[in-house]
Amino acid sequence: MLGGIEAGGTKIVCAVGSSPDQILASQVIPTADPAASFQQVCAFFDTAQATHGRIDSIGVAAFGPVDIDPGSPTYGTVQRTVKPGWAGASWVDGLSRLGCPFIVDTDVNGAALGEWRLGAGKGYATLAYVTVGTGIGAGVLKNGRSMSGSGHYEMGHIYPPHDYESDPFPGRCPLHRDCLEGLASGPAITDRWGVTLSEVPAGHPAFALQAGYLAHLATTITLTHMPDRIIFGGGVMKAPGLMERLRAATRILLADYLSDGPASGDLAGYLVPPALGDEAGVTGALAMAEARAGHAAH
Amino acid sequence: MLGGIEAGGTKIVCAVGSSPDQILASQVIPTADPAASFQQVCAFFDTAQATHGRIDSIGVAAFGPVDIDPGSPTYGTVQRTVKPGWAGASWVDGLSRLGCPFIVDTDVNGAALGEWRLGAGKGYATLAYVTVGTGIGAGVLKNGRSMSGSGHYEMGHIYPPHDYESDPFPGRCPLHRDCLEGLASGPAITDRWGVTLSEVPAGHPAFALQAGYLAHLATTITLTHMPDRIIFGGGVMKAPGLMERLRAATRILLADYLSDGPASGDLAGYLVPPALGDEAGVTGALAMAEARAGHAAH
Repeated sequence: MLGGIEAGGTKIVCAVGSSPDQILASQVIPTADPAASFQQVCAFFDTAQATHGRIDSIGVAAFGPVDIDPGSPTYGTVQRTVKPGWAGASWVDGLSRLGCPFIVDTDVNGAALGEWRLGAGKGYATLAYVTVGTGIGAGVLKNGRSMSGSGHYEMGHIYPPHDYESDPFPGRCPLHRDCLEGLASGPAITDRWGVTLSEVPAGHPAFALQAGYLAHLATTITLTHMPDRIIFGGGVMKAPGLMERLRAATRILLADYLSDGPASGDLAGYLVPPALGDEAGVTGALAMAEARAGHAAH
Repeated sequence: MLGGIEAGGTKIVCAVGSSPDQILASQVIPTADPAASFQQVCAFFDTAQATHGRIDSIGVAAFGPVDIDPGSPTYGTVQRTVKPGWAGASWVDGLSRLGCPFIVDTDVNGAALGEWRLGAGKGYATLAYVTVGTGIGAGVLKNGRSMSGSGHYEMGHIYPPHDYESDPFPGRCPLHRDCLEGLASGPAITDRWGVTLSEVPAGHPAFALQAGYLAHLATTITLTHMPDRIIFGGGVMKAPGLMERLRAATRILLADYLSDGPASGDLAGYLVPPALGDEAGVTGALAMAEARAGHAAH
């Protein structure tokens, strides 16, 4: 039996399953303060274990910044976050009373793994996953293993070219102002236009602007990681037509430079939506648990 | 006995050594057309083998774009380059008559490996190496192994924010115009100012501009790879004071976001010059050969 936790800023999804694609029970818990959230998470797994049997391991795909280095003394600890009460909260401490092994990675790395195991990332040796929602984040897998350096990647804070004439919006990132998250996250869109991207009419300039910023991210991920495919998920990507505009804008930026690789042609097979939709995260958390338990199929 | 080849756009450095830090003979060959260059390279190794004994393997640190995937049918082949005659030239074919195993990687990955083995990168798990010269390139090592995806990285073509008011120079990259290479390579500096950065006086605006563009690269590499250290080498970096300005500009862009990692504080230990100077490339090529021969110390 596997446990999975997808922890986001507004909700925490808990699940148990016999494999990543066989979910037997799940529950959505609103993200409260850490003590209350951990208590509810543990209560779910207590009940699940009583019903479905002993859990071998739990995968935690958590919002960041979070320490994902298993060798670190602060492994599983939430870092420098703006979410009230969560800075310094530890998934290791919060889940310890369950007494089973677990693994902590970022939410976006979890979603990437879910897609790699069962969705749009199957068979891709170097796979990138981008989420565009309340924040912007990206993860990269090599053969199903999430990549990191001294910490997990922080690609939402890359600075794209920002033309103040066509976009006078100054950006809303409290630290970096006009980084990608400051210019192109869901809250940046609503701050700038008063509505979400899904609510503006098709010809609205918001689409070209958004596609341009995300094309800068797609181009930068391409040049820095040379992935075989990039999956773009998250709430903002649900706006009709955005994916097609993203491909067209990325083509212009790449200027056919990488014509002998996957980032070539019309990019229809290179920049793609998630196949698992909103299930990618918890599926990936279960896949993390499976890998941790040592009976991963790959 | 190890062989090393550092192949640049203007010169090819060949060396043999008993280890990466024990060079027994070396020769500099001007980069001509591939046939003439390969002939001279092979002649050097013929003589070297006659004098110093059989070479176990050769490391080739070559200008790109080049196919560095040993599993590819076009391994070692130079791709889509502007260097006359080199597009489609194959290091595999060019060196085949020497009859010894070899390994091909990019020049910048070679320099990174040289610094990791014997220079400013020793002990750094995730190490990035940037060269700023005729072109701009970067490589990333994980525990001494160069990272790649569908091909080697192409970080010189990242687009930095470009403020046309403070920098009306349009950029000189034939494909991307104002990418980093188009704005901040050695030729971009001389196109813009008429002189090199080492020739302008200390207070000249060229310094702030150059530091700003390179800080964008340092910041982007940080956010996309989270290295433990970034080495900045190449001819342009020899301009006095540029490294200090690069650190200051990068600090501003990072805005103390990563205060719990290596990219924190004054960045004096994070952004550093090469320790091996111009020797990094050929040292790295010999280290590649050592790894290929299977008696790598690491």
